[in-house]
This record gives sequence, C-alpha cells and structure tokens, in this order.
Amino acid sequence: MNEDYIARSAQLALLLEVSAYPKPGNVGRRHDFKDTHYEHFLASSVAVYPVLREAAARGRCKGGGVGELIRRGVEESMEWQSGGNTHFGALLLLTPLAMAAGACESSGYKEVKRKAKEIMLSTSVDDAVEVYRAFPKAKVKVRTDVPELDVMDENSLTVITEKKLSLYQILTISASYDLISRELVGGFEKTFRYAPLLSDFAKEMCINDAIAHAYLRFLSEEEDTFVKMKFGREKSKYVRERAKMIVGRGYELKAVEEFDEELIREGINPGSTADIIAAALFIAILGGLKVD
Amino acid sequence: MNEDYIARSAQLALLLEVSAYPKPGNVGRRHDFKDTHYEHFLASSVAVYPVLREAAARGRCKGGGVGELIRRGVEESMEWQSGGNTHFGALLLLTPLAMAAGACESSGYKEVKRKAKEIMLSTSVDDAVEVYRAFPKAKVKVRTDVPELDVMDENSLTVITEKKLSLYQILTISASYDLISRELVGGFEKTFRYAPLLSDFAKEMCINDAIAHAYLRFLSEEEDTFVKMKFGREKSKYVRERAKMIVGRGYELKAVEEFDEELIREGINPGSTADIIAAALFIAILGGLKVD
Repeated sequence: MNEDYIARSAQLALLLEVSAYPKPGNVGRRHDFKDTHYEHFLASSVAVYPVLREAAARGRCKGGGVGELIRRGVEESMEWQSGGNTHFGALLLLTPLAMAAGACESSGYKEVKRKAKEIMLSTSVDDAVEVYRAFPKAKVKVRTDVPELDVMDENSLTVITEKKLSLYQILTISASYDLISRELVGGFEKTFRYAPLLSDFAKEMCINDAIAHAYLRFLSEEEDTFVKMKFGREKSKYVRERAKMIVGRGYELKAVEEFDEELIREGINPGSTADIIAAALFIAILGGLKVD
Repeated sequence: MNEDYIARSAQLALLLEVSAYPKPGNVGRRHDFKDTHYEHFLASSVAVYPVLREAAARGRCKGGGVGELIRRGVEESMEWQSGGNTHFGALLLLTPLAMAAGACESSGYKEVKRKAKEIMLSTSVDDAVEVYRAFPKAKVKVRTDVPELDVMDENSLTVITEKKLSLYQILTISASYDLISRELVGGFEKTFRYAPLLSDFAKEMCINDAIAHAYLRFLSEEEDTFVKMKFGREKSKYVRERAKMIVGRGYELKAVEEFDEELIREGINPGSTADIIAAALFIAILGGLKVD
C-alpha cells in the first residue's frame, strides 16, 4: 500500500482516538490531565507523520529498523509538544503495523497481521537498544517487573548488548505484566479483533460513539495493565467490573460520564486500552472505515 | 525550509484552529454543525497533508501550479470525509503560503510574505481554471457578486479561458466582497498581522485561549464577509459590535459562551475569520510558536 495512505490512516486513528468522548479516565476533547493536554496529543499526532510514512516505505522495501523508527517517532513527538508522554504505547504498536501495511499489496486483515507478527519476530538487538533509548525520552511513567532490565537504567543497554537480547525477547518477558508487550509478541490479537468491531459499530452510530463504545467494551473485557501497575490489582479489577456493568446496560451516556468523572478524579487513566484502540482504529481505517 | 516541517506546521494550524474553544459560531471540539462535524475537520486535516507537503516542495523548486494544488487538496479532503466543505477557504490561503515557505531559507515573516505575494501575482489562467474546478467539488455555499463568472456555472471556465483571466485577476474582482480573495490579492496582510499577535497571546495563556482570543479580536476588527454574504450587512455589523464589546471587557468566558450559543442557534458561522486565523497560526508555528 501507498505510504502516504498508510501514514494518514495511522495519524487519523491517533486523532480520532484521543478526540473520542466520553472515554473514561483518559485525555479527550473535553478534559486534560494536569500536565498533558488535548493539544499535546494533537501536536504529537502531527509530529509523527513523517516517521509513520517512513515506516510504511521501509516495510515496502523489506527494510528493518523498527526500534530506530520508534525512537525517532518519540523524539519527533517530544520536539513538537511539551506535555510529556502522549504516544509511546501507540507508537510501539503503530510502527510495526505501518511497516507491515507497507509490505502488503492490500489491506486484508490476515496479510497485514501475518506480516506484523513476522516483523516483530525478526527484531534485533539494535531494535531493543533503540527502544530502551526511547523510554527515558518519552517520559513514560512505568514500574518494571524486570529489575535486571530497568528501562530507566542506562546499564540495561549493556546487559541487552552482552546477552544479545532482541526486542522480541525482551518483550516476551514484559508480556507477563504489560498489555502492549503482550500484543507485540502475541501477533496483535486484540488489535485485529477490535478493528472489525469498530467497523461494525461505525455502521450503526457516528465514529465518535463507535470509538467510545469499543473503548468501553475493551475495558470490560481486558485488564488495563497500566492501571494495574499504577494502582494495583484491586483497582484494575474494579475498573473492569464497572465497565462490564455499563456495557451490559447498553452504554448509557450518563453512566459513562459518571464513570469518566470518577476515574479522572482519582487519576486513573487506562492508557494501554487507548493505545490498543488507536491501533485497532488504524487497521479499521486502512481497511476502509470512513469518517461519514 | 524543509517540506515536512512546513506541512506539519500547516496541518497543526488546521487542527488547533478547529479545536479552539469557545470560538463563537463555528465548529469546534464542543459543537458540530448539522452535517459538518468536528471529526470531518480532523479527517480533512489529515487528508491534505501530502498536498501541503508537495506545495512546499514545489515552492522550493520554484515550481508553479498553485491552482492545481488547491484543487487536489479539495479532492483529498472530500475523499477522506463526507461532511462537505471543511477547508476550502483555508486551502486557498495555506497552499500559496506553503509554497512560499518552501521557497524560503528561513521562516522570517518578511521573506515568506514577499514570496507569497509574488506567487499570487504570477498565477496563470490554468490556476484560475483549476480553482474554478475545485469550487463545486468543495460544496462551498457561496453567493457570487460576479455573475458572469459564477463559480458554480461550468460556462465560467470558457469565459476564463477566452478572456485569459489569471487567478489573480479573478480574485481582484471578488476581493470587493470576499475577505479571502482580499487576503490573496492584498499580500496576506491580515495573516501576517495576526501571526505575531497569536504568538504574543501564547506567551500569556495556553494555546487554546490564545487562538480563541485572536479569533474574537479578528471578529471585532474585521467584517466576516461569509456572514455578510449569507446573512446581510446588518447581521455582520451586529457580530462585529458584539465581538468588540467582549474584547473591550477582557474576553470574559461567560460572555463568549453566550455569544457562541447565540450564533450557533442562528446558524451564523464566521467561516472566513476561522480560515484567516488558521493561516495566521500556520505562519506563527512556522516562526516557532510551540504547543507548550
């Protein structure tokens, strides 16, 4: 597929995802976080366009370097806004997906999914080093369960090089506690499951509501590991139960808004869920989902 | 200047402008028009990126074809969303400005302004024909005061070719009743006056408020010709007086929101003002305005 078509689909996914309302707990068009505002997400979505296009172009030419592209995407994002981490998780997912789309003739789900999995399987030590370099730049707030490879510790780079660990190998470790890593080593299962769901929703409602519904559905079905890491198992279970109730009762707007207010008040932001919904939106847009 | 830097600056200007709140009478993150929604503007801003980049690249290579680029920008916009006219006025301004920026070494206001004026002065009959072709595609709602060159009449193309009218010459006629045309033949006076104003505002307040203030200031100082054409002289005068009062009293949020509600209720949308603010934002971002 054409690289500008791929980059635009990915960028539109980022913009529509962050704009969707109400999307309990996350930055959206109607509320900011203290230091990270809606406009920071807009600027970051703009900033990463050239890197997304290059990912697609490299995919077409069978080139590698997914780690380098992620690191450069993060650098561009930080260059264009000063709200901190906006798209690190999303870039981890969108970069290999954009490369995969670039390598494919058509936007058929199966082909892109297979290719994306292949790209992740063939990542190198360099890819790992680049992603580790990107972490501190992205100002990600994480607590790692892999102490010997702390993403904020410069010595981790030496360990990675000495042990010759590929990006895929490292993500296999973090997959035990992190939704994004799990997606990256697990063949993007959730991304490609939610893409057709988004398209189905969009046949029945406006694009904003389709995204908001898919987001809630995800919250009700999966544990947001970002919430779990920051607030513990009990809280993340509670978030899932609340979402399940809302979905079960037909996504009543008032209930969603109350849930949103509650999460915002407590600072609980299901960031990983938002990242995966953005990736799923990208695949859906590539496949023909339009803003009608 | 680098074409991806220029295209990103222009795209960010479109996104920040449409997102600014409250911005009396126009589509924004908090309200849609009946058929044209906020998401249509997001999709259109994404859609036009490759054309904006090409405009910058052509400017650098001293190439022409501003009319063709405007027509292609409109086509891309319509391809990616179905909310009708979102960015026709903005593309009329941004395309020659992006070409001018591409032709310049630095983002110094004077140089870009001089170059943009030069580009408009040297437009051709082909440029005129292309822009006339774009009009019906853009689904612009206009009433023209130049009956022999009605933008919605296909015979106008014959008249343009027979009389050998350049885009500049035609815009000189419409400049008598249209703010955008006036800007295009008048050397982008307002764009370059509001760009430093936006930067100054942004030193004192967040980017959203800076844009909302600049928008109101513009409404208070200039007559929005789009409002005048659709609703008459009295109404456009009223809009200006109301804006003047709000500016005079220090942009009190409640007053702005009431004004917004009133204009939305009556369907009065100062579209030309929004287009010029987007162009001014582009110049300000090119010159270093950041989303802090």
